[in-house]
Amino acid sequence: MTQVFVEPIGVTVEVPESETLMDALARVGIDVPNVCAGRGTCGKCLIRLGAGELTPPTEVELRKVPEKLRDAGWRLACQARPASSRVSVEVRETSGRRRILTTSRLHHGRPHPAVTRVTAALDPPALGDARSDLERVQAVLHGVEVPYQALLEIPDVLRENGWRATFTRYGRRLIDVETPEAAGVAYGAAVDIGTSKIIAYLFDLVRGEQIDAEAVENPQMRYGEDVVSRIARATPEARPELAAAARAGINQCLGVLYARQGIAPRHLYDVTVVGNTAMHHLALGLPAQGLGAAPYAPAAAEAVTVRGADLGLDMNPEGGVHFPPPIAGFVGSDALAVIAATRLASKRRPSLAIDIGTNTEIALVHDGRVTVTSCASGPAFEGYQITHGMKAVAGAIEKVRIDHEGRPAHLATIGGGQPIGICGSGVVDLLAGLVRSGVVDPSGRMVSHPLVRKGENGSSEYVLTSGPVGEIVFTQHDVRNLQLAKGAIATGWSLLLQSLGIGVDDLCRVYVAGAFGNYLDLANAQAIDLLPPVPRERVVFVGNAAGVGAQMALIDVRARRRMARLRARITFLELAGNSDFQDAFAARLGFRDVG
Amino acid sequence: MTQVFVEPIGVTVEVPESETLMDALARVGIDVPNVCAGRGTCGKCLIRLGAGELTPPTEVELRKVPEKLRDAGWRLACQARPASSRVSVEVRETSGRRRILTTSRLHHGRPHPAVTRVTAALDPPALGDARSDLERVQAVLHGVEVPYQALLEIPDVLRENGWRATFTRYGRRLIDVETPEAAGVAYGAAVDIGTSKIIAYLFDLVRGEQIDAEAVENPQMRYGEDVVSRIARATPEARPELAAAARAGINQCLGVLYARQGIAPRHLYDVTVVGNTAMHHLALGLPAQGLGAAPYAPAAAEAVTVRGADLGLDMNPEGGVHFPPPIAGFVGSDALAVIAATRLASKRRPSLAIDIGTNTEIALVHDGRVTVTSCASGPAFEGYQITHGMKAVAGAIEKVRIDHEGRPAHLATIGGGQPIGICGSGVVDLLAGLVRSGVVDPSGRMVSHPLVRKGENGSSEYVLTSGPVGEIVFTQHDVRNLQLAKGAIATGWSLLLQSLGIGVDDLCRVYVAGAFGNYLDLANAQAIDLLPPVPRERVVFVGNAAGVGAQMALIDVRARRRMARLRARITFLELAGNSDFQDAFAARLGFRDVG
Repeated sequence: MTQVFVEPIGVTVEVPESETLMDALARVGIDVPNVCAGRGTCGKCLIRLGAGELTPPTEVELRKVPEKLRDAGWRLACQARPASSRVSVEVRETSGRRRILTTSRLHHGRPHPAVTRVTAALDPPALGDARSDLERVQAVLHGVEVPYQALLEIPDVLRENGWRATFTRYGRRLIDVETPEAAGVAYGAAVDIGTSKIIAYLFDLVRGEQIDAEAVENPQMRYGEDVVSRIARATPEARPELAAAARAGINQCLGVLYARQGIAPRHLYDVTVVGNTAMHHLALGLPAQGLGAAPYAPAAAEAVTVRGADLGLDMNPEGGVHFPPPIAGFVGSDALAVIAATRLASKRRPSLAIDIGTNTEIALVHDGRVTVTSCASGPAFEGYQITHGMKAVAGAIEKVRIDHEGRPAHLATIGGGQPIGICGSGVVDLLAGLVRSGVVDPSGRMVSHPLVRKGENGSSEYVLTSGPVGEIVFTQHDVRNLQLAKGAIATGWSLLLQSLGIGVDDLCRVYVAGAFGNYLDLANAQAIDLLPPVPRERVVFVGNAAGVGAQMALIDVRARRRMARLRARITFLELAGNSDFQDAFAARLGFRDVG
Repeated sequence: MTQVFVEPIGVTVEVPESETLMDALARVGIDVPNVCAGRGTCGKCLIRLGAGELTPPTEVELRKVPEKLRDAGWRLACQARPASSRVSVEVRETSGRRRILTTSRLHHGRPHPAVTRVTAALDPPALGDARSDLERVQAVLHGVEVPYQALLEIPDVLRENGWRATFTRYGRRLIDVETPEAAGVAYGAAVDIGTSKIIAYLFDLVRGEQIDAEAVENPQMRYGEDVVSRIARATPEARPELAAAARAGINQCLGVLYARQGIAPRHLYDVTVVGNTAMHHLALGLPAQGLGAAPYAPAAAEAVTVRGADLGLDMNPEGGVHFPPPIAGFVGSDALAVIAATRLASKRRPSLAIDIGTNTEIALVHDGRVTVTSCASGPAFEGYQITHGMKAVAGAIEKVRIDHEGRPAHLATIGGGQPIGICGSGVVDLLAGLVRSGVVDPSGRMVSHPLVRKGENGSSEYVLTSGPVGEIVFTQHDVRNLQLAKGAIATGWSLLLQSLGIGVDDLCRVYVAGAFGNYLDLANAQAIDLLPPVPRERVVFVGNAAGVGAQMALIDVRARRRMARLRARITFLELAGNSDFQDAFAARLGFRDVG
């Protein structure tokens, strides 16, 4: 019997040696994509070996799994069986119903990428025409700037291909010269660097279409789970290490995307990166000390475009990596991306956008002015720091209904299988249900109840259900964590509204972005005071709007300029410096308003 | 007794173990600079050990010779004695009377470098002013472009120096951020890459003044002595090797200049490079095949500016390396530099510029149009391929007067010491004297004469004199080499004049550039038909005008634009494709016109 630890879900499954990983995972409700019922013909059930050993790759795998993926540890779950006493495997983030990667409701606009390609036939040299190769290129690509690398490529490609070539420009700069057969292939990636997760969306820049996505845990997690501890760790000596970790995370995503889509890194010409200001600084290798103390001055808060080679990204070295500008020391380019993606600034009546994450950013537009604030809300609503919390992947309890006696009346898991944990939207439902039924009192204390018992450490815990990996409980500590998180968020939006003299009823739209995707139960979120009590029709769940903003900047170079202009219109409201904050926060920790 | 081979002069000196190299070199007439009469206090008599061994450095040397120079093999000639049976040493190219580095008569114009520096005090962050570091910089350096490297440097330098820093721009690009103490230090180098020699002139860009110069043999010499053989060697596989050799030559010069002047490579911000088109292509790493066959199309004939890091030059990696445009496949940016330095294009009456070298370029302005041609003249007039030829350094016979009986009436050596060989200007005097006195007949044959004897290979040789390293003779073969060289050059200027319908008498100015410096005897050069027979007052010897053109481009960025515009006005006359060339060449080999 082998203990198989399944990442990123965070559960352990007992697997006999005779059982394939696909069967074992299915047994506990973890779906891996699979359209051939385990016969090994579809090649979709990819999992990655982390630690320990699996049986050697079968002939089916050698045939179905590209070598690059195999080298990176990817296996077919229907073929591999455990071969050591402890094994850790990772299931694909993009597989199945992983919500963080679902398409947002927001759309990108029409493509107008920074990268343009043209295949051209040039006049060959002849007696009477001894123009240089470069002059011939300039005659076709008027005003093109030729950096050194392209200068070196031009003569050989032209002379080996009968004076025909495919030229790729990034703005006015010539960044690639290839054989004419290479026409029509140009890719880009929009990257959202979160404190805990890095997501890369792969786009076909010619068609302006998303073709794949991949996410990994931010490798900087080993330097601290939150922004503050990571800033503290980013000493001048450690700074290159943190930068390398962020870039390695991006490269991990890209490597999988390349292997899966059969794309050469050379053809990834453009990358846009959004993130909070600390992630922005650390990924660029900029010092982040300024972000750690008042007045929280960032090192750079402008739009920055560097070359792929500057950052060591696994892409065309002359391609561009564009960072939209952060808004302030504590409000990053991800918040700017959310404001751009929701088109908040163009709303005529007061509207709010809330991006819930480890840091929660809140933006309000009123009279054409955008004011933004941020609060440290912790990762509880993303399923971290909750006893049986997990991310929103297959097997997670995503919906909970608690009856008036405080018992679970309905549970729904992502994928419909047996429950192995509970994700953010389920946690909100559960907390709201327990408060409504009185199992959790207005102060947040768990009261005596048939389903409430004393846990190992003597504190109360509510037994929700049990699944293939054991009981799923919700503890007093979980409740306290959620109180702190929702208290910070509610203080944020309420102080922001108050500072501009706007009442909740004045809000015409509330955009809710973040890991919840479109799956949050609004009434429950409002019941626990996480979201402002506006009528349902005024609330729009927009999923990963920061990612959409990065995508907009990727496929439309004009959106970059719009975002830079937008940033100049945004005012930052510093909550940490607001004397009302602690009072308001304390007043917002309970559940007084729950009806 | 040790055999000491002296580079770049090319003579061998017998030196007893007890003798210092300074004494030995002085004995045969090779001057090394020395103002302390060998006491070791001035530190000027630097020589470099090539092969073999010298006595270990003395305490005087350890004190006087910077470690970097010592590591590169530099010694004091007044201290070092031979310590192995064969030794090769190199005397400094800049020492004494090395003409190739003498100042030209042309001047550079007023400085207006690409590089500008400013030391500024920025507002520190404060409550109410959380602008980014980059915004603070932009407030002082309006519109500056910040590449990635500078972006990384800004925050640390500002925060470690009380928000003061010295900023260096290359055009609009910020290329260096330093402590405020670094103000006022900015250097540049103008480089002339010749087929056989690389010369670097070091400039203080702040003052616009030349402060030093250094020359080395072009390390590409091992790939062939002339342009054609080097083009043939530059296969796609060997191309990076040839590029690396050219760059190593530039770096050798720079390394010596840095050590001698105590300059950090970081502070060399700008380099301009001129050369013939093959040297231009090979230094940039561009394929040169196109230059080897009709229609001789170059890969690039535009002005090109790359970063120091692109070429691996030992300088500020973000600094610029500017290559003015070549004119055509066989007429390089060195010719453009000569035309710019002589201001030929602005002459109202027909004027000629001749740059005599291994390749000789000839430019004619008439009615505001500049026509240029080139001919392969070989290195005979630079002292190569002449039996006792040598470069124009101390010990070279630079002036010769032959009496009407064909005997040497007067010999003058550079430095005034005993003769060890004969340089270009001396060769011209000697040949003209022998022709005038009839020792060489109009067909170029050496006739019977008391000073003419049969040499080892049975052909005639004229015994000119003898010096400390033995007899100095001038052979029939030397005469033939010079006939070919002067024939090619004379055919060049005469066909160029003829093609535009201009007579020699119409020429208002003839500029003579090249290794001769200002030391050529005009009457003798005209007597052997090397230069057109115009009155003395119309001839201007301008020394290394190509180097001056590179210097102009270095210290005045506007000169780069002027040179690019100038190039567009120049017409190239292809002599190799001219059916009259062979006839004219044959007719120009003799000495018919000598009176």
